[in-house]
Amino acid sequence: MLPGVKLDLRLPVGELTAQLVDIESVSGAEGPLADAIETALRECGHLAVSRDGNAVLARTDLGHPQRVVLAGHIDTVPVAGNLPSRLDGGLLYGCGASDMKSGVAIQLKLAAEATAPVMDVTYVFYDCEEVESERNGLLRISRNSPASLSANFAILLEPTAGLVEGGCQGTLRAEVRARGERAHSARAWMGRNAIHEAAGILDVLRSYQARQPEVDGLTFREGLNAVGISGGVAGNVIPDECVVTVNYRFAPDLSAEQAAEHVRDLFDGWEVTITDVADGARPGLHSPAAASFTAVVGGTPRAKLGWTDVARFAVLGVPAVNYGPGDPLLAHSRGEHVPLGAITECEAKMRTWLSG
Amino acid sequence: MLPGVKLDLRLPVGELTAQLVDIESVSGAEGPLADAIETALRECGHLAVSRDGNAVLARTDLGHPQRVVLAGHIDTVPVAGNLPSRLDGGLLYGCGASDMKSGVAIQLKLAAEATAPVMDVTYVFYDCEEVESERNGLLRISRNSPASLSANFAILLEPTAGLVEGGCQGTLRAEVRARGERAHSARAWMGRNAIHEAAGILDVLRSYQARQPEVDGLTFREGLNAVGISGGVAGNVIPDECVVTVNYRFAPDLSAEQAAEHVRDLFDGWEVTITDVADGARPGLHSPAAASFTAVVGGTPRAKLGWTDVARFAVLGVPAVNYGPGDPLLAHSRGEHVPLGAITECEAKMRTWLSG
Repeated sequence: MLPGVKLDLRLPVGELTAQLVDIESVSGAEGPLADAIETALRECGHLAVSRDGNAVLARTDLGHPQRVVLAGHIDTVPVAGNLPSRLDGGLLYGCGASDMKSGVAIQLKLAAEATAPVMDVTYVFYDCEEVESERNGLLRISRNSPASLSANFAILLEPTAGLVEGGCQGTLRAEVRARGERAHSARAWMGRNAIHEAAGILDVLRSYQARQPEVDGLTFREGLNAVGISGGVAGNVIPDECVVTVNYRFAPDLSAEQAAEHVRDLFDGWEVTITDVADGARPGLHSPAAASFTAVVGGTPRAKLGWTDVARFAVLGVPAVNYGPGDPLLAHSRGEHVPLGAITECEAKMRTWLSG
Repeated sequence: MLPGVKLDLRLPVGELTAQLVDIESVSGAEGPLADAIETALRECGHLAVSRDGNAVLARTDLGHPQRVVLAGHIDTVPVAGNLPSRLDGGLLYGCGASDMKSGVAIQLKLAAEATAPVMDVTYVFYDCEEVESERNGLLRISRNSPASLSANFAILLEPTAGLVEGGCQGTLRAEVRARGERAHSARAWMGRNAIHEAAGILDVLRSYQARQPEVDGLTFREGLNAVGISGGVAGNVIPDECVVTVNYRFAPDLSAEQAAEHVRDLFDGWEVTITDVADGARPGLHSPAAASFTAVVGGTPRAKLGWTDVARFAVLGVPAVNYGPGDPLLAHSRGEHVPLGAITECEAKMRTWLSG
């Protein structure tokens, strides 16, 4: 390993967050940060540390019957003139401060200092969460060594503003295609305008009544939206094709297959091509580890509406929730920031929970 | 001039058409054909020949009070495996056979052989009609030497299946823009979907009642159509903009300005940007030269719906019509062809007219 920036895990969690933010780690370039994390954790005698590309895993092996995973991604979206970090009125600003280096700092503090937790813990620090799914570090680990993620419960330290967010909605994308017949636009009546036909597709979207189902006690909120539209051959041609790209966010009481069926039914009469679909995850708040965790955190858990990596744990049979100090509404914004108080509070609650 | 293919203007008009088709002249590469035309015409003692880029002009100067322009473009759309020409059952196949080398062959025959016409004639052979307007050879000549196009009447030998087509409709393109507000597609209700909003633009198009006005005795047929639509930021973003590109084909009783006003009124409430507009041309069939021409041709003149270069003559104050042997529905198609009989018939009628 090349010499790099050294992390000091004895720092207060807010200062450690600033250290992490200052080590730039845009997706695909997490090497220096992964190195620093690995180096720091290898100094902790109670942890078994391993490396998978730019992901680092560390685990206690105390023989407890219960095991939890605390997982966080170490990459960020591209820097937007918001580095280095700066502290202003108790708020820490900087790329990744909210999403999710404050969560990663909590993981690191607990990994170093919770030497005798009441359940075994696996800490996962992974790469490439902010880019296309195929590059996702957690997906790679789940393929390379699924046993390393085995647990009774998992917590992703994604920004949730300190609330427990259970499960996640699934997401499906489909191309809905209207066909027509080309003609010269000076003699439009000799053809059939596919863009005009596509108005019918938009009518379905405009009149769609989205469900808000309750799943395992949490209320989800679905949505069906056009996220793209394209059509047109040339400025003097009646177009013979118009494609509306639709995104369906579906509650985890539906399988990917059922979601696809629903979209096909809705757009009956048009050509529908499902281009990608990812299952959601049920909240899984009924497991003992989840119940004790939500009791310590307090507040009312809510449903996670966006798709997150909790679904990757669901695939492995591990119930998972999102819980972190960042504000999800600030993620990916230039002015991204996190209150130091929120980081400290989350860290304290998790420390309490792990110490029983 | 480099030695090139030699045209034989003594050939029957059908064979001359085949010669012209076999000299490839895709827009921008008309040099060899322009050279051949210039060489052939310079051998005609009764003509004054001049050259402007890849355009050739030839004129009689007999002192007649009336002058007509016979104009044709010598370029073609890209070759589509349809060269060299071939004759099959009286039909001449090949790139440009219909649009419009059969018309050019008629021009050449008349130029060479109508040595004593009853009115003076200017023959114009020009380049780059099949590409963007700014490259159009007739436009270039009208700027370089407008006097060379001065006349009482003009005929474009565009494919019209042997009918006189008067005037042409104008064409206007506009971008009609719907705005929204971005949001993550998992929380769509925090934004406003511009693609869904654009359905209102399509509703206007779908319910539009196009006019069919009579202008100078000919019935035109307007049309208003989407020729393009685009919107979308990413697969997980509620889009904040959707642009519908609209093409309005308007009858020549409206000016370009009136057409723009009409489109702005129709889409009141949306952002409308007029991106290009070209005036149409009134039929101009009431001039003496036009009247004698339509009498010789016979049949009922009809309105030209597509925009053509007749509008460039209208700008110069020269009434103009389209008249040629090709079938307009075959133009630009791979199977483009023209009946030899149609070429011969058009040539004979024009020869009769010019000889009084």
